[in-house]
Amino acid sequence: MENSLYRQAGVDIDAGNRAVELMKSAVQSTYTPAVLAGVGGFGGLFALHDLPAAPVLVSSIDGVGTKVKLAAQLGRWEGIGHDIANHCTDGILVQNARPLFFLDYLATSKLNPVAAAAVVQGMAAACRANGCALIGGETAEMPGVYVEGAFDVAGAIVGLVDRAALLPRLDAMRPGDALLGLPSSGPHTNGYSLIRRVVEGRNLQEALMDNRTLADALLAPHRAYVSEVDQLQRAGILIKGMAHVTGGGILENVPRSLPPQLAARIVTKSWTPPLIFQRLVAWAGIPPQEAYRVFNMGIGMVLMVDADGVDEALLQLPEAVVIGRLVERNAAAEPVQLIG
Amino acid sequence: MENSLYRQAGVDIDAGNRAVELMKSAVQSTYTPAVLAGVGGFGGLFALHDLPAAPVLVSSIDGVGTKVKLAAQLGRWEGIGHDIANHCTDGILVQNARPLFFLDYLATSKLNPVAAAAVVQGMAAACRANGCALIGGETAEMPGVYVEGAFDVAGAIVGLVDRAALLPRLDAMRPGDALLGLPSSGPHTNGYSLIRRVVEGRNLQEALMDNRTLADALLAPHRAYVSEVDQLQRAGILIKGMAHVTGGGILENVPRSLPPQLAARIVTKSWTPPLIFQRLVAWAGIPPQEAYRVFNMGIGMVLMVDADGVDEALLQLPEAVVIGRLVERNAAAEPVQLIG
Repeated sequence: MENSLYRQAGVDIDAGNRAVELMKSAVQSTYTPAVLAGVGGFGGLFALHDLPAAPVLVSSIDGVGTKVKLAAQLGRWEGIGHDIANHCTDGILVQNARPLFFLDYLATSKLNPVAAAAVVQGMAAACRANGCALIGGETAEMPGVYVEGAFDVAGAIVGLVDRAALLPRLDAMRPGDALLGLPSSGPHTNGYSLIRRVVEGRNLQEALMDNRTLADALLAPHRAYVSEVDQLQRAGILIKGMAHVTGGGILENVPRSLPPQLAARIVTKSWTPPLIFQRLVAWAGIPPQEAYRVFNMGIGMVLMVDADGVDEALLQLPEAVVIGRLVERNAAAEPVQLIG
Repeated sequence: MENSLYRQAGVDIDAGNRAVELMKSAVQSTYTPAVLAGVGGFGGLFALHDLPAAPVLVSSIDGVGTKVKLAAQLGRWEGIGHDIANHCTDGILVQNARPLFFLDYLATSKLNPVAAAAVVQGMAAACRANGCALIGGETAEMPGVYVEGAFDVAGAIVGLVDRAALLPRLDAMRPGDALLGLPSSGPHTNGYSLIRRVVEGRNLQEALMDNRTLADALLAPHRAYVSEVDQLQRAGILIKGMAHVTGGGILENVPRSLPPQLAARIVTKSWTPPLIFQRLVAWAGIPPQEAYRVFNMGIGMVLMVDADGVDEALLQLPEAVVIGRLVERNAAAEPVQLIG
């Protein structure tokens, strides 16, 4: 975001400058020695180092859906930065890649430097936690393309994995392998079109039974699961595959990491969906089964783990839950069987 | 873009399916052997190979500004795909990186599969020409965020360069080095907020003197200069730096590749700005000097080349023009001096 942009936008230059400084220092706080900064000020430079035998770059680009609309409405932007960075991180973590660097695109009808700085600070904090450099970004002001007061954010991530460590390992999966669920912090980035419809007219400041407001629960940032996966792998637990529970929920994401001859039998009562999901499902009046397609229902990541490793995994990660197991799948059967 | 998205959007499934097939085959046409396809359907996988001694990844994320608004208004989408892919490519080419892969984010108020397929086909064609794999993408439908009928597109690119070959080489630049201009195809992706204002109310189908319509001239896709730079380097010409003439024009982009003790003396009459720029400048009523800040004025890329290499460079690239040279810069002098 340049001063010239502020001039065009008629933004107060001092406020703009403060925002730029905040963003710069946030971005720089994510730099590792691999980032070659200050070379001409063009593209982000990342020096590859300590490469594995067969290095594979894993990349993904994504947005956070209409959660941005809710954030804009409430003037709470920082969490959106966490959302996009963590969502992208989990998107490549399922292939066992660890993030190297992240780039963001932030566009709006009219530049709001305070909002932009908050989003970037959120992204930077999430990137730091994930060991990822925030290496580049673009801020665009596009009146006539974006609705007044609305903004959108997209992120691109690049990670690295050794080809031999790529997941899922479909050939290694067996009936009896455990499905380990890692808790989400809330709806993450999915189901917000429905969410926005069902909360319309409600007081977003109303307290839920867990003492958070509805707004807090809906804007809780997406979690990344890098440290959890690291911890299990360091403990020698064989993770055969992972499913990031994003659009399509457990029902549509778990099958993406399964071979055709195996199904996931999931016992829904093995965990209690957090209050926010119970409310959303009731307000929306959707059938129980459908809830596991629209929302993550409290499980943000599913790991396929060898049954022998389950006890140790639960010791390592007390918040993890065995939510089901792999079973043989008949040709006509669904890839996910939800058992109440 | 998934079928489920079409269902939500109420799009005709057959039209949707045809569009998805078109996109798939366009995307796959960009794949090189480095792309590991079909592994789980998650992130894009790119196997690094033939790495230089000190591999540096160069990345950039960008949009194409409000050119998307004009394209949507005219229902001409394919060029926008070329625009974003080539704009990103030139963004990392200036550091002497060659693109490995590209990812796109396409978002709109309401999904139009024909438009989306056209954009993706344009991107794929540009990626193929630049030796770049279109490795990932996301399509988002966000009513309430985007203005009805409007769309935006962002692209992220990752390229590779040997650290020893990184540009600009500020230490190698000398007074007398030539500034070689490579022609643009039109305004590329810059100045479109002004352009849209000045052409408002004009007949975009009116023929310009060069027999193209105004719409053709305004939507001509951004050029990439990979093959031109390759050709010069293969011929042994030492390129010391490059400037991609994007937002800020020649006046603001050339200095980004110059050391503080050198200025660019540019003789504007050394080339004739294409007709479209003459018209736009006249219609907008902007001062001549300002035109070189708002528009590229016919020069899409500027190369800083050793004076000894100029004759050979002009033989290699007959369309290139010497537009000026580097001179010593006094502390108080502007970094670009335009001479009429």
